[in-house]
Amino acid sequence: MQPSTLITDHSSLITAPFLRACRRLPTDITPVWFMRQAGRYMPEYRAIREKYSLIEICHHPEIAAEVTLQPVRALGVDAAILFADILLPAIPLGVGLEFAKGEGPILQNPVRTLADVKNLRPVNPETDLGYVMDAIKILRGELKDIPLIGFCGAPFTVASYMIEGGSSREFLKTKTMMYSDPQTWHALMEKLSVVLTDYLVAQIRAGAQAVQVFDSWVGALSPQDYQNFVLPYSQKIIQAAKAEQVPVIHFGTNTTTLLPLMKQAGSDVIGLDWRIPLDDGWKILGGDVSVQGNLDPALLFAPLPEIKKYTHDILRRANGKPGHIFNLGHGILQNTPVDTVKAVVDMVHEYQGN
Amino acid sequence: MQPSTLITDHSSLITAPFLRACRRLPTDITPVWFMRQAGRYMPEYRAIREKYSLIEICHHPEIAAEVTLQPVRALGVDAAILFADILLPAIPLGVGLEFAKGEGPILQNPVRTLADVKNLRPVNPETDLGYVMDAIKILRGELKDIPLIGFCGAPFTVASYMIEGGSSREFLKTKTMMYSDPQTWHALMEKLSVVLTDYLVAQIRAGAQAVQVFDSWVGALSPQDYQNFVLPYSQKIIQAAKAEQVPVIHFGTNTTTLLPLMKQAGSDVIGLDWRIPLDDGWKILGGDVSVQGNLDPALLFAPLPEIKKYTHDILRRANGKPGHIFNLGHGILQNTPVDTVKAVVDMVHEYQGN
Repeated sequence: MQPSTLITDHSSLITAPFLRACRRLPTDITPVWFMRQAGRYMPEYRAIREKYSLIEICHHPEIAAEVTLQPVRALGVDAAILFADILLPAIPLGVGLEFAKGEGPILQNPVRTLADVKNLRPVNPETDLGYVMDAIKILRGELKDIPLIGFCGAPFTVASYMIEGGSSREFLKTKTMMYSDPQTWHALMEKLSVVLTDYLVAQIRAGAQAVQVFDSWVGALSPQDYQNFVLPYSQKIIQAAKAEQVPVIHFGTNTTTLLPLMKQAGSDVIGLDWRIPLDDGWKILGGDVSVQGNLDPALLFAPLPEIKKYTHDILRRANGKPGHIFNLGHGILQNTPVDTVKAVVDMVHEYQGN
Repeated sequence: MQPSTLITDHSSLITAPFLRACRRLPTDITPVWFMRQAGRYMPEYRAIREKYSLIEICHHPEIAAEVTLQPVRALGVDAAILFADILLPAIPLGVGLEFAKGEGPILQNPVRTLADVKNLRPVNPETDLGYVMDAIKILRGELKDIPLIGFCGAPFTVASYMIEGGSSREFLKTKTMMYSDPQTWHALMEKLSVVLTDYLVAQIRAGAQAVQVFDSWVGALSPQDYQNFVLPYSQKIIQAAKAEQVPVIHFGTNTTTLLPLMKQAGSDVIGLDWRIPLDDGWKILGGDVSVQGNLDPALLFAPLPEIKKYTHDILRRANGKPGHIFNLGHGILQNTPVDTVKAVVDMVHEYQGN
């Protein structure tokens, strides 16, 4: 056998456009998927929600798998993202998670003191969150050539829910812990990084072919606070996931001034929101990282010609450079028309440049 | 008389540090004031609120003036800001404004169609909002050497309340109007720029010595949407106020990627939030504009040594360059300790550089 016939470039073995783009390999089409692509905006999902709560869906791997598959069938996206919630690991931690109707998450036992942190229970993802791994295993059997994305919340975003006791606008209790009781803050972040790392690695070992770390609310922080209070912990999770040989996507909103630091956290792909033009964001990050984004989810309520204008603008800014994954700048909003989402998938796939 | 004895540099006539900094003139101390420096965190204000609603306070010029003066007396700040609400002009427009207890503003007749815009009533600030001008006149008699800042909401932020019918997180109805019904959007912005310009000019003519245009929520937009849907209208108001010969401050949050466009709107001072280090923001804006900011309001809940570290960091980044007005990156939060606010004023005034 001649040496020239050996496959020396293993990247050629990766065929799924989404996974190739994560690795900055050329693709025929720009891959596209949507954050929160499974959920309330889909009639198939609402039909299931009539019988099961959000947590019940997560707890039943076959139903979670079915919900994960719904948008793959309906939209023709290039990746599936596991249906789950970033707060699932908070359940075995013992913070009393509830999803009140139309209210978002409520945590009955918020974490405010060092004693609260010490009282958090140890988490074994295989036993405590095994239902997530079971859903992943079912999905890998169903999905064939569509890659499956696993995910977790980043420690800051998860910590903010645990400290505030639910959603927040100002993150006042969270920031006050940082500034007034850094010992407790660091203990909590240390604890969460371990739990979230174990959880993410377990998802990869169960079959997730890429993972996304959601730091949705981290844009509430200044760069200096991000560096001192968040970066080391996000970095730890991302490095552990990368060591499992799958691509890691790092996502946040309002992150323009944090991008150089997020780059240091070391993911393969960084999510951009619509506040920064894709090319400007990619320039800040440098050419050695892929980018994901960045259509404003509100645009999915606009007429198609208008959406096309914005979608093409994003693709034009990506300029055919390998390493762009098309997505929204944040999750799909409730009441988004499904036909419009499908139309955007087609627009992205059919784009020829201009 | 020799020509050399003539006062040729009129800037030397301006003595108040706040007004000098607005004009980028040197000052002995860095001037400091706080957005929402009058309000619920002060016991004197809460005592008045036991008897009067927010709107009642605004409607009674003597009470509005008293509330405006409370923080000037208690804190030693370098400017007073008129106690009012950015939605006051919405009352004569006829949108049915109410302040529900602990809920923020609710507008009973939101603006959703071109007919709704056409139904907005004409506003004469002197007759419809005369109580604001009366408060300004009282205050100018009381304040002596402390300058008085008047203000209005910017058209985008006011429009967002009018379209959403209250506060919003996603601004979905607002953006949907922009994208799906630009004719109605532009008609509303045109109408609001006229009303808000007249209102701001009336405040200046009543005695306001500087004005701030609050575009608090504009950071929800991409730069391209800001340019197409917002900039021309904000520009109009700012230019009209500048023509009255008072300095204009232009404020928003989450505006990192909008700063070059906000600069085009033409104000003398631009507000920065804590998401961008003050020197980085000032560099983007260029040396021909003053900057205001940018302590995170959440820091006022931290211990004083921690606050001092952040306050000194901001002052160090300003580096003694004329044209920095110290402020928060957004309004004072409820329950902020008054003593801490006072301590920050002293920290800023006592700063010697290091």
